[in-house]
Amino acid sequence: MSWKEKVHEVIYEADTKAGKVFDVALLIVILVSLILVVLDSVEQISLKYHSLFVALEWVITIFFTIEYILRVISIKKAKNYIFSFYGIVDFLSTVPLYISLVFAGSGALLSLRALRLLRVFRVFKLVRYSGAGSRVAVALRNSVPKILIFIYSVVIISFIAGTIMYIVEGPEHGFTSIPRGIYWAIVTLTTVGFGDIHPITPLGQFIATIIMLLGYGIIAVPTGIVTAEMTKENSRKNTQVCYNCGEDDHRDSAEFCHNCGYDINSTKDKKMMKSAENED
Amino acid sequence: MSWKEKVHEVIYEADTKAGKVFDVALLIVILVSLILVVLDSVEQISLKYHSLFVALEWVITIFFTIEYILRVISIKKAKNYIFSFYGIVDFLSTVPLYISLVFAGSGALLSLRALRLLRVFRVFKLVRYSGAGSRVAVALRNSVPKILIFIYSVVIISFIAGTIMYIVEGPEHGFTSIPRGIYWAIVTLTTVGFGDIHPITPLGQFIATIIMLLGYGIIAVPTGIVTAEMTKENSRKNTQVCYNCGEDDHRDSAEFCHNCGYDINSTKDKKMMKSAENED
Amino acid sequence: MSWKEKVHEVIYEADTKAGKVFDVALLIVILVSLILVVLDSVEQISLKYHSLFVALEWVITIFFTIEYILRVISIKKAKNYIFSFYGIVDFLSTVPLYISLVFAGSGALLSLRALRLLRVFRVFKLVRYSGAGSRVAVALRNSVPKILIFIYSVVIISFIAGTIMYIVEGPEHGFTSIPRGIYWAIVTLTTVGFGDIHPITPLGQFIATIIMLLGYGIIAVPTGIVTAEMTKENSRKNTQVCYNCGEDDHRDSAEFCHNCGYDINSTKDKKMMKSAENED
Amino acid sequence: MSWKEKVHEVIYEADTKAGKVFDVALLIVILVSLILVVLDSVEQISLKYHSLFVALEWVITIFFTIEYILRVISIKKAKNYIFSFYGIVDFLSTVPLYISLVFAGSGALLSLRALRLLRVFRVFKLVRYSGAGSRVAVALRNSVPKILIFIYSVVIISFIAGTIMYIVEGPEHGFTSIPRGIYWAIVTLTTVGFGDIHPITPLGQFIATIIMLLGYGIIAVPTGIVTAEMTKENSRKNTQVCYNCGEDDHRDSAEFCHNCGYDINSTKDKKMMKSAENED
Repeated sequence: MSWKEKVHEVIYEADTKAGKVFDVALLIVILVSLILVVLDSVEQISLKYHSLFVALEWVITIFFTIEYILRVISIKKAKNYIFSFYGIVDFLSTVPLYISLVFAGSGALLSLRALRLLRVFRVFKLVRYSGAGSRVAVALRNSVPKILIFIYSVVIISFIAGTIMYIVEGPEHGFTSIPRGIYWAIVTLTTVGFGDIHPITPLGQFIATIIMLLGYGIIAVPTGIVTAEMTKENSRKNTQVCYNCGEDDHRDSAEFCHNCGYDINSTKDKKMMKSAENED
Repeated sequence: MSWKEKVHEVIYEADTKAGKVFDVALLIVILVSLILVVLDSVEQISLKYHSLFVALEWVITIFFTIEYILRVISIKKAKNYIFSFYGIVDFLSTVPLYISLVFAGSGALLSLRALRLLRVFRVFKLVRYSGAGSRVAVALRNSVPKILIFIYSVVIISFIAGTIMYIVEGPEHGFTSIPRGIYWAIVTLTTVGFGDIHPITPLGQFIATIIMLLGYGIIAVPTGIVTAEMTKENSRKNTQVCYNCGEDDHRDSAEFCHNCGYDINSTKDKKMMKSAENED
Repeated sequence: MSWKEKVHEVIYEADTKAGKVFDVALLIVILVSLILVVLDSVEQISLKYHSLFVALEWVITIFFTIEYILRVISIKKAKNYIFSFYGIVDFLSTVPLYISLVFAGSGALLSLRALRLLRVFRVFKLVRYSGAGSRVAVALRNSVPKILIFIYSVVIISFIAGTIMYIVEGPEHGFTSIPRGIYWAIVTLTTVGFGDIHPITPLGQFIATIIMLLGYGIIAVPTGIVTAEMTKENSRKNTQVCYNCGEDDHRDSAEFCHNCGYDINSTKDKKMMKSAENED
Repeated sequence: MSWKEKVHEVIYEADTKAGKVFDVALLIVILVSLILVVLDSVEQISLKYHSLFVALEWVITIFFTIEYILRVISIKKAKNYIFSFYGIVDFLSTVPLYISLVFAGSGALLSLRALRLLRVFRVFKLVRYSGAGSRVAVALRNSVPKILIFIYSVVIISFIAGTIMYIVEGPEHGFTSIPRGIYWAIVTLTTVGFGDIHPITPLGQFIATIIMLLGYGIIAVPTGIVTAEMTKENSRKNTQVCYNCGEDDHRDSAEFCHNCGYDINSTKDKKMMKSAENED
């Protein structure tokens, strides 16, 4: 095994001890770099610990630089990594400090550094393997098409409600344009209710009342969709495998395989077959 | 086939290629006309691109005029279309510009142009055919009577709560009349909470606390109703009956009866057997 | 049948035509009297139509007076009605105008007239008989003990959160006392969020963040409780009656009564037995 | 039985009459002491009844002192109690008044007295035994891992949303730092919506709109998780096995097997059969 292959195993894989240590270390550096971005945005803290922050920023940038170079040289097809989602994120979250050496603009620099936030998605890789997480994920994935139709309906209702409120209340009460009316309608439908814009005329308040009741009613829809999916996911538990055709999703009361008609109970070694059942 | 029949097929039906192209083109024009209405309401944009907007407005109005005329002449009974919901919407969303040539009032013009929003409902026609959408729609339709009883209860609670708050807080704290009290009660019960009116006396805050807990508790009701309907819709079993043993609770994908092992698909008169299946 | 019995039948019962007409008429008068109370609280309307409102008020008061007298004399034990919930509500919502003739105080008068709101509960009597309503009602009644435990927990969390915020933010940021802190905590936990009081110090905002996430998480609890009850209520549908013991809540797959062991399928007239099944 | 053992039974256990009386008395004193802390924080009340509050404070402190001493001496290993959660809470909620005799600082005193709030957790001990409560508790405990993953996701979304809003809106519109942006994002995602900070630029309002729709959509997730758990808890079937045919899915109230009609209760060794029942 060449040193490149060893590096590849440590950086890209997680099934050796060195690989796990590297993953955890990377995670900690990412979190530290995030906390740095967050704290640096608070003026009082930023002024006080400026030199410390600059020093830490250099340490992290150098770490990310080394990691990036190792990732590029240890993979066979460097292109696959460089132009992948993580490749671009890694690159963009490493370069800001180098750019700031050349150009002295801090605003754009911050925006770029904020891209490091996207690195957190690496953390999801770890969560993905946990049982509870994957069950929730399956239920959510199944809900997506229904939720999209629902959000589409909400957007149309907001369009209509926002336009009506713009006509009824008008610019003098804060509804200065239809987009602002739509913004208000979504703030209201989702029950957020900032209160920065609110109806003042009795007619406007009456219409707002109807929109609120509507929003209160339709909040039930995404909930219903996700819940129904999760209940389904929970109740899918018998995985008795057919000895003949391998079908593994039989009912609890099934005596014959519904796929090939084989008598499930005739099998001698029933335990082996049932070993695939879930334990929950 | 006369040219009228051809036009009818393109405009009213969606099963030919020309019909589909027309539907998508119409949809795009509707969306563009909507975005126009929305952007035109933003003063900064409206002032800048005024001449562009007027030009686009004419293009869309002429398109809608031609579509309207074709719809009227290509249908056998023109009355059926003209006095239908879409007929009236199509007419009202076409005429504003012509009216503005005669009368120079822009306010009422906008209100009429906003009616174009109702055209979006045509889009639902496309959604209706998708599987996920129809299942959600069935569950929602079944929930309507229960949701109505629920909204009725919310309105009564708001009446009582609004009156109590009007008596307790009084006009000097923003509760200037019972309708305003009811408006506040609905804002609070639905957890929107604008904050434009809020209780100031300790007693008023105590009552508000109870109303909020009540609202928090009853938000569960519409959710429960819709969820229970969706779970039911999900679990609605296939009721294909086995010709051999009479078992009638097979999976959709079953090819053999899970009770006796009989080949369900071998039956000659499959249609008769499947007649018991749900239609959803 | 004496005239008293006839009056009793019309007023107290709803199974004759006259009884139904009376119930609907009473409902309309109650709703009109409510709208009167509501409109009278709006100053602009009240000033304009003052004489009309006074006249209508007299008509309604005389109607309620006659109804009250008839209820008292047509029932056998007048005490049962007079001291019942509705007896007291009926009395209190009738007398205000008479009292105002003696004493000239309008404030207390309004408060008494507002008691008419309680009359709306009579409307629930009509709703109670509808199928959908009763199913929801059963599910809600079953949820009550669980919901109470939940509200108790929310109140305790609000107590702790309100005290912490009072200590952290202090009177200078609006948290003038622990009760106000508790009021804020409930406003936040229930996601109402008026914004009349809100944390200003970073620590206060951090604690508020945790309270909000908590509130967002526990909103799931009442919803879960009610939904689980409704799903249960929905799935309780087979009501096959046992010919032997009358038990009517068998499983779909039951072949023997689980209460007395009688063979359900042996009965000759199965249709009669199954006639009690729900249709949903 | 020595007097120490008798005291132990009264204070630590709840299965004798004296023990129950002590528990209820303790609960009342705790509640009174809490109400005292709450009322004392309201300036108007505090000034008026100052001497009464001081007197009551002494009564409660002496009661707590005696209780604490009895708890310490009546237990065999005093260390186990003193350094347990309740031991520390009991100590901390007893000493403030004694400390105030030595040092005259009222602010810190209040903070310590507020620790008495932790004593309310003793109340949960009583709730734990109620049936409805324990079922809800089981469902909640099962939901915890899933809810944690969910809250973790919400926090990450808030991080990203808060940073974006800080860059888009900037300090001049209230988003003075990334932590404040995150605070705003959580206020918005949880649909609380105080309105103390809100987007002002059109782009900021557009992003806020997306965050709100996202929050509206993901509120369904904790609800779905808890509901699915509760439905599972509700449907957890009785698994009493029939001695005759082996059917194992009887109702709780069943006296005869619904599959073969065998009298389940006639079995001699009922305990063995019932051993398969769930414990919940």
